[in-house]
Amino acid sequence: MLKVCFIGSSGHYRYALDGFRFIPDASAVAVAPGCEGEDVDAAIARISNAGQSPRKYEDYREMLDREKPDVAVINTYFAFNAGIAVEALERGINVFVEKPVGTTFEDLERVRTALAASGKKLAAMLGLRYAPHFYTAWKAVREGAVGEVRLMTAQKSYRLGERGPNYRKREIYGGTIPWVGSHAIDWLYWFGNKRFKSVMASHSRCCNRGHGDLEMTAVCHFTFEDEVLGAVNIDYLRPSTAPSHDDDRARIAGTSGVIEVRTNKVYLISEQRSGVQELAVDNPGSIFADFVAEIRGDGQCLVTAEDSLYVTEACLRARESADTGRLVTF
Amino acid sequence: MLKVCFIGSSGHYRYALDGFRFIPDASAVAVAPGCEGEDVDAAIARISNAGQSPRKYEDYREMLDREKPDVAVINTYFAFNAGIAVEALERGINVFVEKPVGTTFEDLERVRTALAASGKKLAAMLGLRYAPHFYTAWKAVREGAVGEVRLMTAQKSYRLGERGPNYRKREIYGGTIPWVGSHAIDWLYWFGNKRFKSVMASHSRCCNRGHGDLEMTAVCHFTFEDEVLGAVNIDYLRPSTAPSHDDDRARIAGTSGVIEVRTNKVYLISEQRSGVQELAVDNPGSIFADFVAEIRGDGQCLVTAEDSLYVTEACLRARESADTGRLVTF
Repeated sequence: MLKVCFIGSSGHYRYALDGFRFIPDASAVAVAPGCEGEDVDAAIARISNAGQSPRKYEDYREMLDREKPDVAVINTYFAFNAGIAVEALERGINVFVEKPVGTTFEDLERVRTALAASGKKLAAMLGLRYAPHFYTAWKAVREGAVGEVRLMTAQKSYRLGERGPNYRKREIYGGTIPWVGSHAIDWLYWFGNKRFKSVMASHSRCCNRGHGDLEMTAVCHFTFEDEVLGAVNIDYLRPSTAPSHDDDRARIAGTSGVIEVRTNKVYLISEQRSGVQELAVDNPGSIFADFVAEIRGDGQCLVTAEDSLYVTEACLRARESADTGRLVTF
Repeated sequence: MLKVCFIGSSGHYRYALDGFRFIPDASAVAVAPGCEGEDVDAAIARISNAGQSPRKYEDYREMLDREKPDVAVINTYFAFNAGIAVEALERGINVFVEKPVGTTFEDLERVRTALAASGKKLAAMLGLRYAPHFYTAWKAVREGAVGEVRLMTAQKSYRLGERGPNYRKREIYGGTIPWVGSHAIDWLYWFGNKRFKSVMASHSRCCNRGHGDLEMTAVCHFTFEDEVLGAVNIDYLRPSTAPSHDDDRARIAGTSGVIEVRTNKVYLISEQRSGVQELAVDNPGSIFADFVAEIRGDGQCLVTAEDSLYVTEACLRARESADTGRLVTF
């Protein structure tokens, strides 16, 4: 049996739950809040509806010590995920953790150290790598569809709605660049397959409709090895009337083609063929199932531990640039 | 009669020619190259085909002195446009000049000084303000379609093809940010209606297929007054197989809507109405006809002299940032 404990329910724990159907022996043994004020009852209901019978704990440490799970699924208020990941790793538990892995450089370093000492596995919930349209585009780029990648842009645009208290204080929220932007920053790294060299970023809290510290807009401008360039734009300005919650996009321009992800579709213009092709999308499966396969020595998650930590670092450096108004180098 | 002289044919002189049908008394009296090595015969043929009978000069100064035109249409190799504009202004001739107005800060300053001393009019060939789709989006933004503008992105993507010698040396070409990017940088300024505060930019000559100094890719990241943000991505990577030469885009996100220009169409998502609306496009007419109307005290060009100079300055500051790797403030 694969014993899974859930800590918190403020992020993408459903990535894990959705993976259960690919892991016949997976069992959601227990759920606990990750911090004071977090209500996990809705998550327990959802996990129960999926045919599981999790116990409820008030203290996640007690849960980990008693249940001794194989995997901890960690997604509480954002600033606390790193500390909980460290506690899980120190207990020899594999960690499937919300992105960003840490909201401070210190926390990120603590996770890195604990991970290395543990010999266990970690993956961040960079689950959009498994969105069929992004995966399809990435696979095409890997197979040379655009030649050498030279310029990348990516967009995250969300509806704001009315956000909870964990979005309103920087020390809990971590910032819009790490929270929303992490996906887009991850795409640049994943598609480009180059190390980051520098970032200049800006963000603004203006017009955030009473959401405290939450930044409504951000732009991040990265340079990579070999003069590859990448830009990310992020906003919470998507109207409530829009046809979807998010408007995720990426455009990868290379020496022999341009690939684009937009409205969950993939478009390719290639020197090899006239006109715009829409690519048939390919489903890569489940991030969590792949993570479990990796734990079992039977596969490899598209999101590696190293990527999880490195992309988090890139997010924090971008935020640092935006906070200070200075160029930040890697 | 409105006497028009054409100097050079390496840019968008057709904006002027296309405007002739709105100016019944306009006459293309003469054409001269703007610099050594520039062949204007094709331009003379095209102007003649439009029902004009221009004389040909080898020396544009002689042409200006003899013909005493009302307007000089200046579009030679890019680095020489500013000096020619100064010569025209000093002769009391109105100037319709290729963008960027100058390729160095010194040249730009010379034009600014000559313009002020002349009492004449100047407009840069920022003719995409008159492209119906961009004009329609701009008008909608001006009328409040997206509320307060907070985040803008714009794209210029061109096919490279095989470019002439004037694209291959920085001291002639001026750079891809001023040449290609000027339109996109202009959109940010025009849509946002805010002063520039800072720019961080990057560009790369990698993979330019033997085009010398020509930069294939660029990213510019601007901040504006009131924490408005804007990003521009520029490339020559559009495949030859693409359905059009260019792929111009803009996206303007505001407090109550998002407007987008893509494939010559305009899309609006507004808090006022459900779903994505495609706006009917409006044709604003001719940039050159409006410029002539302005000269005659009978109208106003959408591209003012002040905008022409200020956007050129923004382009040069962006190029400076990309050349030095440093943040540049305005």
